[in-house]
Amino acid sequence: MDQLPKRASNYVPLSPVGFLPRANAVYGDRTSVVYGRVRFTWSQTYARCRRLASSLLALGVRNNDVVSVLAPNVPAMYEMHFAVPMAGAVLNTINTRLDAKAVAGILRHSEAKLFFVDYQYVRLASDALQLVADEGKPVPLVAVIDDIDMPTGVRLGELEYEELVARGHPAVELPQLTDEWDAVTLNYTSGTTSAPKGVVYSHRGAYLSTMSLLMSWGVGNEPVYLWTLPMFHCNGWTFTWGMAARGGVNVCIREARAADIYRAIARHGVTHLCCAPVVFNILLEGDAAATQLAAPVHVLTGGAPPPAALLERVERIGFRVTHAYGLTEATGPALACEWREQWDRLPLPERARLKARQGVSVLSLADADVKDAKTMASVPRDGKTIGEIVLRGSSIMKGYLKNPAANNDAFKGEWFLTGDVGVVHTDGYIEIKDRSKDVIISGGENICSKEVEEVLFNHPAVADVAVVAMPHPHWGETPCAFVVAKDRAAGVCEDDVIAFCRKHMPRFMVPKKVVVYDVIPRNGNGKVEKNMLREAASKLAPEQKTKVNKTTNTTTVGGRRGEHPVAHVMAVSRL
Amino acid sequence: MDQLPKRASNYVPLSPVGFLPRANAVYGDRTSVVYGRVRFTWSQTYARCRRLASSLLALGVRNNDVVSVLAPNVPAMYEMHFAVPMAGAVLNTINTRLDAKAVAGILRHSEAKLFFVDYQYVRLASDALQLVADEGKPVPLVAVIDDIDMPTGVRLGELEYEELVARGHPAVELPQLTDEWDAVTLNYTSGTTSAPKGVVYSHRGAYLSTMSLLMSWGVGNEPVYLWTLPMFHCNGWTFTWGMAARGGVNVCIREARAADIYRAIARHGVTHLCCAPVVFNILLEGDAAATQLAAPVHVLTGGAPPPAALLERVERIGFRVTHAYGLTEATGPALACEWREQWDRLPLPERARLKARQGVSVLSLADADVKDAKTMASVPRDGKTIGEIVLRGSSIMKGYLKNPAANNDAFKGEWFLTGDVGVVHTDGYIEIKDRSKDVIISGGENICSKEVEEVLFNHPAVADVAVVAMPHPHWGETPCAFVVAKDRAAGVCEDDVIAFCRKHMPRFMVPKKVVVYDVIPRNGNGKVEKNMLREAASKLAPEQKTKVNKTTNTTTVGGRRGEHPVAHVMAVSRL
Repeated sequence: MDQLPKRASNYVPLSPVGFLPRANAVYGDRTSVVYGRVRFTWSQTYARCRRLASSLLALGVRNNDVVSVLAPNVPAMYEMHFAVPMAGAVLNTINTRLDAKAVAGILRHSEAKLFFVDYQYVRLASDALQLVADEGKPVPLVAVIDDIDMPTGVRLGELEYEELVARGHPAVELPQLTDEWDAVTLNYTSGTTSAPKGVVYSHRGAYLSTMSLLMSWGVGNEPVYLWTLPMFHCNGWTFTWGMAARGGVNVCIREARAADIYRAIARHGVTHLCCAPVVFNILLEGDAAATQLAAPVHVLTGGAPPPAALLERVERIGFRVTHAYGLTEATGPALACEWREQWDRLPLPERARLKARQGVSVLSLADADVKDAKTMASVPRDGKTIGEIVLRGSSIMKGYLKNPAANNDAFKGEWFLTGDVGVVHTDGYIEIKDRSKDVIISGGENICSKEVEEVLFNHPAVADVAVVAMPHPHWGETPCAFVVAKDRAAGVCEDDVIAFCRKHMPRFMVPKKVVVYDVIPRNGNGKVEKNMLREAASKLAPEQKTKVNKTTNTTTVGGRRGEHPVAHVMAVSRL
Repeated sequence: MDQLPKRASNYVPLSPVGFLPRANAVYGDRTSVVYGRVRFTWSQTYARCRRLASSLLALGVRNNDVVSVLAPNVPAMYEMHFAVPMAGAVLNTINTRLDAKAVAGILRHSEAKLFFVDYQYVRLASDALQLVADEGKPVPLVAVIDDIDMPTGVRLGELEYEELVARGHPAVELPQLTDEWDAVTLNYTSGTTSAPKGVVYSHRGAYLSTMSLLMSWGVGNEPVYLWTLPMFHCNGWTFTWGMAARGGVNVCIREARAADIYRAIARHGVTHLCCAPVVFNILLEGDAAATQLAAPVHVLTGGAPPPAALLERVERIGFRVTHAYGLTEATGPALACEWREQWDRLPLPERARLKARQGVSVLSLADADVKDAKTMASVPRDGKTIGEIVLRGSSIMKGYLKNPAANNDAFKGEWFLTGDVGVVHTDGYIEIKDRSKDVIISGGENICSKEVEEVLFNHPAVADVAVVAMPHPHWGETPCAFVVAKDRAAGVCEDDVIAFCRKHMPRFMVPKKVVVYDVIPRNGNGKVEKNMLREAASKLAPEQKTKVNKTTNTTTVGGRRGEHPVAHVMAVSRL
């Protein structure tokens, strides 16, 4: 075979940013972004991004500099997904639900050079900046994003987003990407269980993820995409770039409120939206359940599977739900529950059961598997044997920023370890069972806390629930349930709950302790603060003289957990 | 930014061959290939490919060795698209319509180590092998592919495909791909106008093309794909690999005959097929035009746009046609006419006009443009100004095998030159007008031979037509038309044709000569042998004392053509 060289014409670095110039060329006259009374075409979006990129260069932003942003789903947030990398810089989107301390931590760790702040978050940002300054650390340059539809005049320093766009020039030459392995964005994990980690995506990984998620979800030509999922979650599961690839319409709203969602669907003919399952409850608020969408809206959801009854109600309105599983570290969804036509003929509960599975690997992954973490052997396809979900492929992050320990724990030879445990069904579809750290090992048996929780959710007096491990002198660990009463006055009776559990689950899974709380503690992303509950449970534990050495436990998950420091199993965070 | 290293877990070489192990894992129980009474699942196809790959290794096939195959669309041909690269080798599919001399030329040039021959082509293959042997060149090892459904016993030497599959072992360790730039296949151009050139695809390019063609055509989950397009054309426009990516069904048939096509559609619920426009005539044979498909069948077609009337008849049966443009050098389709919903409301002739355009670049291309070949400036988007179509992106071939001159001509800085000329419409959609070498330069005016041909096709007495340049002492060149009469007895009158042209085109475009032929010479791919016609035309040219120096011509295409050797403009071949 000839040693044919790579050329500028046949080896172009893969980058999702390249979808924008293409959109300008081939979808130029189509609508790109809608927000309130503001509407742009793809040509305008391209010109605006080029203008902003040239302004960033003029401000001194250089290759690999980090540009942070704290903003909801407004047009500026969308544009920065292209403009920042077009200036050679790395976009760091910050979760707007964090507190000042967490924001300051990210600004410090990322060494952000420039910090864009939506006018709504000026207070949070200035508190965070103060914390950075107090430590004597360098403070980034700040630019406010005023509301583009209804300017408020709120400022934090000199710079404003629209002024930077206006001041820039679309014809300025921008740096060329020469290496597709270069960083494109930096996304911090939510840090439920450990310090947030900075997840770095390469241009290559983001390009491949964008392509394969459009495929897995079957997004066709001319989608109208509603931004309910925050763009700061894995860059909107890559659909920021994906809409440019398909010449779609980005319908931007500040908040995912039911009224705004239904108004946007009706006004703009929304075809697609992504959301956490918690948004399903929002969609069903008030008399929404009685409405009927004029045309089906495709919904991609991640995280915990919605209960069948909820799914049924949402689908009856006209939403078509696809379930996915992903992690920040996998550039968003890594598994998606590809629907099979033959399942259409099944009764709804069966359909919901199949749909609740997280599914099969997206096309950018070379492989996804569930493995015995000790032997790294694949578990049998029996829908029962649990193991750790492991992934491999070019859409996995470059790594954690400045965190070699976390990188060493997360990457193991050919595999990236997700820290989630699951099973493989006979048809090859994977179902998540738990975080590996949330598995309870009781007398050598692995108990998925999620399974116990699912049963408890069916208890008529229980509104909310979380189950964690409680140390136990005999069993090593045993489940401890925290429950919230539907009717606070009536409360919940511990014995009644335990009796209910005995009826609906194997004896070894039944919680030995039930604690009634007013509310289950959750973080800004709606994730249960299980570390906090584990601490509470350990104080409730029966008299315990010596700590059981868990490394003696020979079961799959426990064994692995025993061998690795706790830092390991925190190395991943779900969507 | 951290210098995060590439790891085995997050940097996996891109390869379309990887879609097969994934299909085994996630679509294992679904049908992969159907042929006559033979039916395989994806698990079986995977196991068979692994077996064959191990047998290839046992036969001594090594990394980068070329394995040639001469076969129609049978299961073996499909499997070899995976099994050959799985053994580290390069698959070379040979057009079954070539003669022994051309086949021998390919075997020699590619230095094939192993040569698989379908039983139907044993005669052609043995003639070709004899020619290779006669020259004293090394002769490849030969294996016959007997019919898997109805074995014939025909052999050519010792080896037989099914025996090699049976003899292999699915558990043998296969070589790992380490560089995505490695060659995966080798496809020879048809050589209408020059010696065939060996086009080398990389794993990377083929992977990206597969992904983006599935997207451009909107191929969803569970497609049922009918193999009407020969797999030896750009590896079936990458849908060989694409069906594994989507877990589709490959319906294999030996020949694209109307009866076989309609039977397959009815029996297997075909959803997609690709074909050259000439197959449209096959689809309309007999009383087919009166039939109605039970469900729509999506058709992707390339090459010359089908006339509106033909398109209308085919669509009325239930075929949904998408038009594309591609070249062997671009791994198949490079532009596809993405449909816009708003066009649905237009009258049919207008829809046909829009649909006949070749469209917008597929997502694996970084850019596609139409440029003044002299200045390399983009032509205005006026639908009129012609220029050369140029492409750039990672789905462009690695290059021509052992042909530095052709590589130098085809690659120009950032661009790959297609040798086709076209226009860009105001909406950014590209329309091909001609091969640049088929443009006729008459008195400084560019005449697209296709435009003249289109007018002549409307002449009531003309059945077929081809227009080429004829040297002219005054104008430099002038069009010369070759026509075939609908009614051979009645014939066609030259003066009448010229008068018709004067009515329907600008004076300078009117052919100065009309020649009546019994048949227009076409090669095995149905492409007009324009070189042959040019030679005939030059003999008919008016008295010509001195040859006009074409480099003095200052128009776009002519000027460029003057600068480059003729070899250049032959550097591409359309699908």
